[in-house]
Amino acid sequence: MPAIYYFDEGQALIIMEYLSPHIILRRALIEGRQLPDIARDIGLFMARTLFRGSDLHMPTKDRKADLALFADNVELCGITEDLVFSDPYFEAKLNRHTSPQLDGLVAELRADRDLKVEAQRLKHIFAANAETLLHGDLHSGSIMVTDSQTRMIDPEFAFYGPMAFDVGMLLANFWMSYFSQRGHEQSGKRDAMRTYLLEVTVETWVVFRAEFSHLWRTERTGMLYQKSLFEDQGDRLGAEQALDHVLHQMWTDLLGFAGIEVHRRILGLAHNADFETIADQDLRADCEAKALKFGRHLAVNRRHIHSIDEVNTLATLIEQESSI
Amino acid sequence: MPAIYYFDEGQALIIMEYLSPHIILRRALIEGRQLPDIARDIGLFMARTLFRGSDLHMPTKDRKADLALFADNVELCGITEDLVFSDPYFEAKLNRHTSPQLDGLVAELRADRDLKVEAQRLKHIFAANAETLLHGDLHSGSIMVTDSQTRMIDPEFAFYGPMAFDVGMLLANFWMSYFSQRGHEQSGKRDAMRTYLLEVTVETWVVFRAEFSHLWRTERTGMLYQKSLFEDQGDRLGAEQALDHVLHQMWTDLLGFAGIEVHRRILGLAHNADFETIADQDLRADCEAKALKFGRHLAVNRRHIHSIDEVNTLATLIEQESSI
Repeated sequence: MPAIYYFDEGQALIIMEYLSPHIILRRALIEGRQLPDIARDIGLFMARTLFRGSDLHMPTKDRKADLALFADNVELCGITEDLVFSDPYFEAKLNRHTSPQLDGLVAELRADRDLKVEAQRLKHIFAANAETLLHGDLHSGSIMVTDSQTRMIDPEFAFYGPMAFDVGMLLANFWMSYFSQRGHEQSGKRDAMRTYLLEVTVETWVVFRAEFSHLWRTERTGMLYQKSLFEDQGDRLGAEQALDHVLHQMWTDLLGFAGIEVHRRILGLAHNADFETIADQDLRADCEAKALKFGRHLAVNRRHIHSIDEVNTLATLIEQESSI
Repeated sequence: MPAIYYFDEGQALIIMEYLSPHIILRRALIEGRQLPDIARDIGLFMARTLFRGSDLHMPTKDRKADLALFADNVELCGITEDLVFSDPYFEAKLNRHTSPQLDGLVAELRADRDLKVEAQRLKHIFAANAETLLHGDLHSGSIMVTDSQTRMIDPEFAFYGPMAFDVGMLLANFWMSYFSQRGHEQSGKRDAMRTYLLEVTVETWVVFRAEFSHLWRTERTGMLYQKSLFEDQGDRLGAEQALDHVLHQMWTDLLGFAGIEVHRRILGLAHNADFETIADQDLRADCEAKALKFGRHLAVNRRHIHSIDEVNTLATLIEQESSI
């Protein structure tokens, strides 16, 4: 079982010193390091926190009291709501993208009706669905690693929201790392690193599903899908059917959140180092353009994508296009 | 524009006296009275309250502060959560149904895996989706009427939840009234009343959609589906596309909530007078059995039902079966 702790923002620098040789996961991936345990650790972390903070496990009275506390986190939620779901899709003041290389594609995305509608539907889910206590900012910059340890930091965006949000944001950051590798090949090809990153997305999702399903069967003590209606009636299959529905809905939504996360990191205010550290601006824009197209496909077609292997096939096809 | 006010429970009796000749809508429908304005008044009421309490209209900061206040309403929400979505589907202590006439059908429904899973998915939506401030108990016993006035009372179940809940519960009560009319034919056939009730469901939904769409176009000032992304870019069709998605999702969910509301009123603790005032227990059970079958169909097949006319055709077919 992985040792996982939360640290607040103010403690992060001290902890980075203290926890040396831990480094930020994003940095490790940019350097081309293949961490052996991250998929398992992160998959378990997400399944356990998301399941146990929801009405699947927690007494609903406690969840609602907690929800009222976190409802105060309006300003940080507001940042996510505007910066993630809306600003990237019109001429907002804080936007920035690699220009002029991406200007044409950016104009195209901002005129893309299906994409904008889908982004707002996801914002609707994000804002209204107080399903569980999320980390709320679970990207590769919020995770510190060594070869054998994984630590989650920066929980200041924590709030009650949809389970799919944490999972989608996290996976999006692996896919962005994947598309950015071409920009970091100065000291050698990154083919093995690309393969590793896609394997990490598969393993993270497989571990997440397995652990979530395990908790569903063993710790489903909350008011939703009660055992009194299923297992206690001798109907184990009913509980499994409900689990399939819950996981399917989560899958469909997480693909949407992943697509939007990719976009806001390239089009909005908060960029990430995966692309920003690529010095050659044409090369950087090429990596970013591929990621943008990938994100658009996920967000708009999320109801028709059935497996993480399909997503990774799509990523591979787009990444291998000679030019965008 | 209808005059619509909220009264709290303690005031209701005084107000019933004061507002005489207002009577409870449920009572009027049992007596076979055709109120001319209820569909319009209730449709407008629901569209305006549900739209204006959501992030479609209200500043999200205000909605979240309000949400925290209403998160205290745990006990009354708990009643809904258990009594409506779970208890009817297993041997809960507080259940009661017309026995022995319905025993066979009740056993069948409690063994109905698809129904139970769907009821829990709806509970999941009910508990997690804090989309707008609901009335929370909007049935025909919470509405007082004259031929020209409509008053909503009993808002003590108010909380933040999914828009579809109020609309589904309300429509379910019209459909239950429809199935109960056969039990109130001592002083003459109720064919015209049955026709009237189905027309009321159609008009309520039509008025609701029209007013909701009107508010969407004129009062969409909240953070969701912002005009800056659509109309301000010259893309009115994008806003209409998003409206279609929102209304479609609401429709799909409200059918589910309607089906479950019918069940809990016949199988659970809180019955309604529509059926309870039928003295002949065999006749009563026959009316109830038809309503139960109707509710089961709505809840399980809600994603494949496209219009309120389809629902009413189904109701007519079931109602006209000679025996259950």
